[in-house]
Amino acid sequence: MKKLIALYRAPEDAEAFMAHYRENHAPLVGKIPGLVKMEVTRIERTLMGEQGNFLLAEMYFADADSFRTALKSPENAATGADLANFAQGLVTVMTGETLV
Amino acid sequence: MKKLIALYRAPEDAEAFMAHYRENHAPLVGKIPGLVKMEVTRIERTLMGEQGNFLLAEMYFADADSFRTALKSPENAATGADLANFAQGLVTVMTGETLV
Repeated sequence: MKKLIALYRAPEDAEAFMAHYRENHAPLVGKIPGLVKMEVTRIERTLMGEQGNFLLAEMYFADADSFRTALKSPENAATGADLANFAQGLVTVMTGETLV
Repeated sequence: MKKLIALYRAPEDAEAFMAHYRENHAPLVGKIPGLVKMEVTRIERTLMGEQGNFLLAEMYFADADSFRTALKSPENAATGADLANFAQGLVTVMTGETLV
């Protein structure tokens, strides 16, 4: 499957960040066409390597075609625009493909 | 669910890295007690934020108890020791909990 991955570093106000994420951002993500599944993981501890990650969000798409359509959609653009509202400078957004 | 998350930055030799990952590392991960599911994602593009991530590996455990047991297991120690063989300085290892 194709994945859109967002890794967020720790915000100054975790509670306000999570409230915005839950109430505003996640509903926008949910409107992206072709979204098959979403998984959000709260990072608890860093055992090795780079400290400071806070949240990992993964959005799944069935195949390359539906992923391309999703990335070009106005719903994805709206989701990206919302990142500026609450995650400016905190987020790394990546695309990927599951191997196993 | 509880998750062990490993995020790898791009190695010098991607092919050799993936061969070691597939043939040596993943089988060690597979022996960790309580492992419910493993998902490996090859990062393709970085759309925003920090460049240079290469691979995301996620190991799932049913609950806090089985996760604690897994992290303390000799099989997990062997997996961690193998990281030094092929991913020294490249890997960030985190623990987390899925929210949705």
